[in-house]
Amino acid sequence: MSEYPFLKACRGEVVERTPIWIMRQAGRYLPEYREVREKVDFLTLCKTPELATKVTLQPIDRFGMDAAILFSDILVPAEALGLKFDFNPGPVLESPVRSSEDIERLSLADPEESVPFVFETIRMLRRELAGRVPLIGFAAAPLTLTVYLVEGSGSKSFDQVKRLLYGAPSSAHALLGKVAELTERYLKAQIAAGAQAVQLFDTWAGLLDPSTYREFGLRYARRVLEALRPTGVPLIYFALDSNHLLEEIRECGADVVGADWRLPLGTVSERLGQRFPLQGNLDPCVLFASPDTVAERARWVLEQARDLPGHIFNLGHGVLPQTPVENVEALVHTVHSQREET
Amino acid sequence: MSEYPFLKACRGEVVERTPIWIMRQAGRYLPEYREVREKVDFLTLCKTPELATKVTLQPIDRFGMDAAILFSDILVPAEALGLKFDFNPGPVLESPVRSSEDIERLSLADPEESVPFVFETIRMLRRELAGRVPLIGFAAAPLTLTVYLVEGSGSKSFDQVKRLLYGAPSSAHALLGKVAELTERYLKAQIAAGAQAVQLFDTWAGLLDPSTYREFGLRYARRVLEALRPTGVPLIYFALDSNHLLEEIRECGADVVGADWRLPLGTVSERLGQRFPLQGNLDPCVLFASPDTVAERARWVLEQARDLPGHIFNLGHGVLPQTPVENVEALVHTVHSQREET
Repeated sequence: MSEYPFLKACRGEVVERTPIWIMRQAGRYLPEYREVREKVDFLTLCKTPELATKVTLQPIDRFGMDAAILFSDILVPAEALGLKFDFNPGPVLESPVRSSEDIERLSLADPEESVPFVFETIRMLRRELAGRVPLIGFAAAPLTLTVYLVEGSGSKSFDQVKRLLYGAPSSAHALLGKVAELTERYLKAQIAAGAQAVQLFDTWAGLLDPSTYREFGLRYARRVLEALRPTGVPLIYFALDSNHLLEEIRECGADVVGADWRLPLGTVSERLGQRFPLQGNLDPCVLFASPDTVAERARWVLEQARDLPGHIFNLGHGVLPQTPVENVEALVHTVHSQREET
Repeated sequence: MSEYPFLKACRGEVVERTPIWIMRQAGRYLPEYREVREKVDFLTLCKTPELATKVTLQPIDRFGMDAAILFSDILVPAEALGLKFDFNPGPVLESPVRSSEDIERLSLADPEESVPFVFETIRMLRRELAGRVPLIGFAAAPLTLTVYLVEGSGSKSFDQVKRLLYGAPSSAHALLGKVAELTERYLKAQIAAGAQAVQLFDTWAGLLDPSTYREFGLRYARRVLEALRPTGVPLIYFALDSNHLLEEIRECGADVVGADWRLPLGTVSERLGQRFPLQGNLDPCVLFASPDTVAERARWVLEQARDLPGHIFNLGHGVLPQTPVENVEALVHTVHSQREET
């Protein structure tokens, strides 16, 4: 199993070539994905194991990515807290969680009973992948899922969740504690079903200053990751736009840290104390330039990564819907050709 | 004139008490502002000197802020490039600037002829203020105005402008050069009309990594600020969400650097080489908590600022529309009372 370049790189072992996968690799930029989506809405796709399996495999088949990632959404496990939501097109919660009564009322059901389709998809994917590449499971970090639960829909200022953190910290901790327990059980069940690595997405960590992040973000991400440690699968932590928090992130308890495109990987590694294999970090917008520019910028990222304790190539954020497919091809080709060049 | 605490703090001189103003202090959170806006749309308000003057003065009268800032919008000077836009409610450009032909076609008219109402407002404000507090003028930094001109409206991914920066750098430089010339002339004219300090808003700088920022952001901000240096008025540079760029921002050429709320002022100052008075940096969302929390957090910011070469209290970003007025009162009271406490 540890012959997979992706898993070897996660463990900081020497690899013959840098593995690559890209966030949202099963998505709207792929014509074969859009074809599936013409017939079903996003949530139905997440909840139908045959279809979720089908789209998860598309970028593996087309590009030869070095890892598959479960097709799902970070809001899905909220159903185990009894919360209903829809996509319109962004996530919209039926009733946001704001008051201390809202928080007390939440009770945690077994994720395997509330969202069985997730684990069924993972089992189906492992059968279909038949060992070709490893499968990554994922969840939002507790802070990030909490942001969605409190805001209820997209936000520019995030004033609702910050009102809770700043103004009612004990309610915030009560909610984060429940969400952390959910996340822990949800990811353990993903691993039990067959996920060979997991990534914790902390999309909104970067909204906070270091001490607020330590109290409400890091602490709960770390709790989840420590609980998963005994499973032995590689744990990846990715906090978007959080370069001001790198000194805190050192303590996140993951094996691998994801980096957005805002700092060179060498700088990120230094600020993290050179102790983590890194995953990243091409700006997804580079994929709107020419294939030559894509190749040049990808080589620059690879060069930056030369002295890291390990490197998994990825974008610095999810691939965008309008991305030309040939540029993703150029990217994968560049990363996979690098072996011959070095 | 240098008896004003705001101007003294900008120059790094000792002040008896920390001056305060807040970004978007004339705005929708104020009932007296909403009353004006019930009768006119946003752009008409910007273009009518009597009304723009009226709303600029509102927060001075109500809270005793230590500086007034011209009521306007960063897109206004784009009219001198022959570009039309509207607000709906965010800015929407009639036709975004994207191709090299679009860029070549832009010719720069004299801002005093294209947007005379801006300078008329400044002259009127100086008369009305009659020396009570200094008046700040402002503009977007060239990179940030360019982002709006290329995207044409709000964006989540900024792929259009990044396609230009990454894929057609010489076109990007041609556009940034024109925008920088406009910005320089526009701010010189504001100062000539009576602005006693100017702030350059670089809202989108933080989207870029250090080398891309150096090439397309810093270089043009610095060009503008250096051109304004001989006027002798304090120059403030504020780049939102740019803590990964602080080492670059050292070279911005401003007198004062604005800081968002994401890092404590002490850390920001260190990373800037302890050489700038700083402006900031309470999270605007703190103003959604109780007045007690506001006071406590404001005192924490003041403490962080103790050893700076100078400090102007501000929020880390604009005040939000739903902010309770009594919390802004509590904030100003806390900052103004500090003199007695220390």
